[in-house]
Parts: sequence; structure tokens; C-alpha cells
Amino acid sequence: MAVNLHAPDPQSLSAVAGIELGWAEAGIRKAARKDLLVVRIAGGASVAGVFTQNRFAAAPVIVCREHLVGNRGVRALVVNTGNANAGTGEPGLVAARASCEALAKLIGCDAQQILPLSTGVIMEPLPIERLIAGLPQAIGRLGEGHWLQAAQAIMTTDTVPKAVSRRADIAGTSVILTGIAKGAGMIRPNMATMLGFIGTDAAIAPALLQQLTQQVADRSFNCITIDGDTSTNDSFITIATGRGPTRIESARAHSFAAFTEALTDVARELAQAIVRDGEGATKFIEVRVEQAATEHEARQVGYAVAHSPLVKTAFFACDPNLGRILASVGNAGIDGLQPERVQMYLDNVYVVRDGARHPAYREADGQSVMKNSEIVVRLQLGRGRAAASVWTTDLSHEYVSINADYRS
Amino acid sequence: MAVNLHAPDPQSLSAVAGIELGWAEAGIRKAARKDLLVVRIAGGASVAGVFTQNRFAAAPVIVCREHLVGNRGVRALVVNTGNANAGTGEPGLVAARASCEALAKLIGCDAQQILPLSTGVIMEPLPIERLIAGLPQAIGRLGEGHWLQAAQAIMTTDTVPKAVSRRADIAGTSVILTGIAKGAGMIRPNMATMLGFIGTDAAIAPALLQQLTQQVADRSFNCITIDGDTSTNDSFITIATGRGPTRIESARAHSFAAFTEALTDVARELAQAIVRDGEGATKFIEVRVEQAATEHEARQVGYAVAHSPLVKTAFFACDPNLGRILASVGNAGIDGLQPERVQMYLDNVYVVRDGARHPAYREADGQSVMKNSEIVVRLQLGRGRAAASVWTTDLSHEYVSINADYRS
Repeated sequence: MAVNLHAPDPQSLSAVAGIELGWAEAGIRKAARKDLLVVRIAGGASVAGVFTQNRFAAAPVIVCREHLVGNRGVRALVVNTGNANAGTGEPGLVAARASCEALAKLIGCDAQQILPLSTGVIMEPLPIERLIAGLPQAIGRLGEGHWLQAAQAIMTTDTVPKAVSRRADIAGTSVILTGIAKGAGMIRPNMATMLGFIGTDAAIAPALLQQLTQQVADRSFNCITIDGDTSTNDSFITIATGRGPTRIESARAHSFAAFTEALTDVARELAQAIVRDGEGATKFIEVRVEQAATEHEARQVGYAVAHSPLVKTAFFACDPNLGRILASVGNAGIDGLQPERVQMYLDNVYVVRDGARHPAYREADGQSVMKNSEIVVRLQLGRGRAAASVWTTDLSHEYVSINADYRS
Repeated sequence: MAVNLHAPDPQSLSAVAGIELGWAEAGIRKAARKDLLVVRIAGGASVAGVFTQNRFAAAPVIVCREHLVGNRGVRALVVNTGNANAGTGEPGLVAARASCEALAKLIGCDAQQILPLSTGVIMEPLPIERLIAGLPQAIGRLGEGHWLQAAQAIMTTDTVPKAVSRRADIAGTSVILTGIAKGAGMIRPNMATMLGFIGTDAAIAPALLQQLTQQVADRSFNCITIDGDTSTNDSFITIATGRGPTRIESARAHSFAAFTEALTDVARELAQAIVRDGEGATKFIEVRVEQAATEHEARQVGYAVAHSPLVKTAFFACDPNLGRILASVGNAGIDGLQPERVQMYLDNVYVVRDGARHPAYREADGQSVMKNSEIVVRLQLGRGRAAASVWTTDLSHEYVSINADYRS
């Protein structure tokens, strides 16, 4: 029951020259479902990645970090669902490296030029033989037009495949960006993974792409939450093949700003798609925090609101129980926050004026906003000029059911 | 459906010389229920308090802090349920002060010698006239034997009144400690209040009692959580009347250690009673963190586990989905945590050895522990010698129902 989210029209997804995608049914955890994806990348592409901050980073995350050091030129991703290969110790690392070696042999490159990614149950051994046995099938299906099938291949409990494509004009040239993602991380954290990949035909040096990728992640995937549980496997990978006409020379170029905007746009739509498909979600909520001293502080307040089970259950109930939001703001750990300077709006309804209920606020107005499927909570802290948004969902019976039943 | 918690036997609750309790049905929010409590304290008693760290501290909390400055000698508490008087701005402060003035006039003391406490819905005006109108009835019922009725008078959505009494021998003298509490704070955060009061007939100077009260709170009420939402009204008050034979002269006295132990014992049982009566709770869970570098760090890890909705739903499902616990430990923000030094036990079952699933662990063993109503999760971080426990519950459908329906 995703919130205003539909499967992408295959016609809307542009191929990215230099990126081929192929999938297999490898039976990693269950039979007869797409659970293995190979992404082959043409020589000369730049690849960047940002990964989970969880201290129990999964084995594939550790290997990805190693393989991205030194710009050896990444030539492929190998992605499995059904098993996160996390909490698996040294055998997990051996298995992740084995998957790289097997794929490298098949496509003719070094194992260090492969990035492995996994998503699924934590603390169970990765069935590496089944993964390796599935590689030839995936390679046999490699093609530039397979973005939708790739989005399907990384689904776990997602109800809708997530893929987004954009064309942007940058300094008179046309650039293509196409990306896919799967729910997880803070949304499907038992699945233990948020995965996102975006490819573009622009040319951009690896170091610059890495810097940009971190910046884009902070404005997209790092702004979503369902339940606050950062997973062991979160990974966001960008691939710039340089096969199109657009060149991004430096961070000072006009084209860099335009490209950043286009990439952020794709990443944000994928990130929001993950929230819309959040477990048990019935509402899509933006917590917009303004007049903060810093962007970090704004995000801190946004997360305090978005993580409160009481706020989330109130949204589920369509109950404008706004004292719960105020309490969560007070609970965000902002030193020196002055309650009497705080304003709150629910969509356009002015709810809290100067830290207390607005005298003109009528519950019926709050009630009518709460019935919508998309709601903006706008908070002004009266401390400065920074702002940030956090996107989240409500907390429903369905969330408890899904997470209480997931493994069985 | 409290977890292994029953209403206290009235015979088990000892009176504390110098403390009288009386209640009223003042109709603060609903008719015909006990919702107002007056606690009269004999002259010469020491009174100490610790309060919520929420930046949106409720009006009564602000007034309590003012009135505790300068040791004027507290002579009474006035406590209402049904309305938290939080997020109410200046009118809220005026109302809290008016309740003190009205009670002071009736019992003959200064308004500054009264501590006001409130619990209930946030961001609605306190019906101060109804509260004041109820005071004479409460005063008419004042009596030293009314601890159970007092516990009932502060209940909101609690299903069981919470009261604990102890006699302890301290340096050859007998001391009485009796306390009451209501669920809230992180458990019933919409009710917006955890309240706890403990009275004793020991004699102890106000400054020493204040220091002790903070210390005891850190080992009892500050170790519980249901959903991580620190309320606007949390208050823990201790009253030492000095009417018994026990004298606590200084923090170095042998009697101080024994008294601390007795007071901690009462506070911890009350705190655990709040967890046992947690909204929708079906399990009582202790997260015990050992081998931490500091007690603060141990508690930080304990809370990361206890706040994870995925861990909580797994407990609800009796599913030994232990990767979720490992992921939440990795998510606790401990710099330099070495996964390969982490051990985990579920009761006596050795589950994680050196950061990965124990080779000898069998799911059936985890499953059999998960079926119990009381479970200890023991984590060893391999970083030092500090330890701490956090007590919590699971996250059930009932929790969502209660919090989605509470106001309606």
C-alpha cells in the first residue's frame, strides 16, 4: 500500500550509454524470484559511493570501501537480495570477495574492479555457491535497456520497483541520469539495506563525483527515515560513464551546479519513493524545519519529530495531536532552544504561535489537514536562517505486522 | 495487560510519619474519576526533585524548579491528571501559580512552599477553576494511610496503581520508605508525564537529599524507555520528613550508602512497574550492557537497542531475529566500537561471539528464550569495565491502537 507511488513506465527510463544491466533467479533465499543483479560498466567511467555509518557495516560494504580506494576503475556491481552478509565475520568477507573474483573471471577484469552489494536477513551465512552459479544467467541478460528489470531484481519487501530517469540541459549539452533504489535501511531495516544506484552519461572525474555523491546523499537518502534504524548495508553508488556530450570540469563550473541539481533531483525522487513504499505507510510526511542555526540542527529537529512513535501513531490516526510534535521538538537536544520563539504550521494552518497553541487555532482545521495522504509539518525555530527537510511516514498496525512476521 | 504486575496489597504500604495524602474527583478532564491529589508535608521535612530535560518543560515543572530554590521548606504537592499544562505559554504559568496560591491559603503556608505537578494532554489550557474547586474535598480526605488511593489518583491510562514500600535497617535504626508512580514519560508520552514520589521518615539535609535524588533517578527512572519520547512533565520528588529515628548526616557516612541502596530499590521497583504497565507491553526486557568504557556509553548502547522498533517488534513476535539487535548496537554512535570484540547473550544462550553469529548457536535455543515474558539481553562491548541496564518492553499492535486512539 505505497502512498501515491506507482511502478515506473518502462518508456520513461532512458538507457545510459556505457551501463548494461542483467539479472538472474539465483535462489539466494527463495526460488523463482529475481535476486541477483549484475551491472556492467564500460571502461573509463567514474564511480563513487557512500555507505552506512553503522559500526556493524556488512562485509560487502567493507569490500566496496576497499575497492573504491585508488581509482582502479570499477567495471561492475554484483548485487544480491535475500541475505545481507552482515554480522557474518571473516567468512562473510571471504564470501563477498569470492563473488567479486567469480564475476571478474567471467567478464574479464580484476576482482578489485568489482563492487559487491547485499541486502536481506542479517547474521546468516551468504549462500555464495548459489550466487556464483547465478552469474552466467545474469551476464547473458546484460543490456542497456534493462533498468526496470534491475529495479525489480533488487526489490525485497518493496511493493513497487523504484526507478527514475531525467534528461537535463547543462551548458548547452544534454545529459541523461537514470537511477534505481530499493526500500530498506531505516525503512526496511530487517532487510537491512537501502540500495541506490544512479548512472549518468556525463563525464566527471572520480574525486569530484565522490564529493558530489556525498553532498547529494545528504540532501536525499540521508533525509529519509521510517524508524531510525540505520542499516548495516546502506549503499548509494553513482556511475558517470562519460559517453554523453556533457563534461563537468570542476566544482566551480556553472555546469557543476546544474548537474548537482539534476542528480539531487533524481536521488530525492528515489529516496522519497522509498518512504512512500515504507512498511505499513498510509501517509507521506515532510517535516520542514526553518530558522535553525545550522542545517545540522534543522535536521536534528526534523529527525526527533520523524522518529517519535507518538507523532507517527497520531498521523496514522489522523489525529491532530500536536502537543506530541511540540514535545518531540523539545526532546531534540537543542541547547538554548527558546520555546517562546517556536512556530508550527500543519500545511497552511498556523498551529503554534510563540511556543504555545495559537489562540485562533481550531481543532477542526488541524483535523482536515490530517486526513490528507501528504502533509507538511513546518517548524520555525527562531534561531537563524538554516533549513532542512526530513521525509517520513506514519506508524501503523501494518508496520507492526510486517516486522513481527517478516522472517516467518 | 501489564507484564507480571499486580495492584499492591494495601497492607504492604507503610505510612510515613509527616506525610498525609488526600484526593478528589475534580472533573479536570472526565467526570467521576480521581484526578486531583494533595500531599501535605509536616514542617521541617527536606524535599528534593529532578525534572524533565525536555526544552518544552511544562509550566508546573518551571514553577517547581523556582519553588525548590532557596530551601523555603516545601509544605505540599498539588497534582492533577487529565491535563499536562504544557505548551500553554504564559497563561499556563499563571494557572500553575494560581493552584499553589489557592492551596497555600487553604492549608496556611506561602504559595512558594507548594510544588505543582500535572499530567495529561499537552497544549490544552488547564481548567484551573475546576482544580481549585476540588481542593477542599482533597484536603478533607488527608490521611497518612492513603498511599494506595494516592497511587490511584495519579493514574491516567495506567492499568495498575503503582506503590512500593520498604523498611530498612540503617545503622541500627529502622527507616520507612514508601513511594508511588504513574506511567508516562517515555511510556505514556501522550499523557506527557512520568510522575514519581517517594517519602521516607529518615532525616537528611535538603542539599544531600537533592544530590541523592539525582543519583537514584539515574539508576531507576532514567533507565526506562518505551518509545524514547522524553515528556514535558517528568518529575520525581523525594520527601524526607525526619520523623523516624534514622539520621543521614553526610555522603561519607556508612548510613548514606545503606539509605541510597534502599531508596534506589524503591525507585527501581516503581520504574520497572511503569515499564511492566507500558502501553501494549507483552514482555519485560532488560538490556544489560557490560564491558563498556563508561556507564554513559553502556546506557547509550542500551537505549539504542531498546528504542529500535525492529528489535521491539521482533520481541513482540517472539522471533529471535538477533541481527536486528546487532544492527542497533552498531547504530548507537559509539566511536571506535570494534564489532569483533562484541559478545551477545539472550538470557544464558550465547548468540554472538566476537561480532558474528556463534557457530554453536541454534535458532531453537533463541526461540525458546523469546517465548518468556521476561528476557535479559546481555551485551559485552570489550572496551572497559563499566555496565548499565535499560528496561523496556516490546512494540505490539496494542501500542499502536492505544496511541492512535488515545484522544478520541
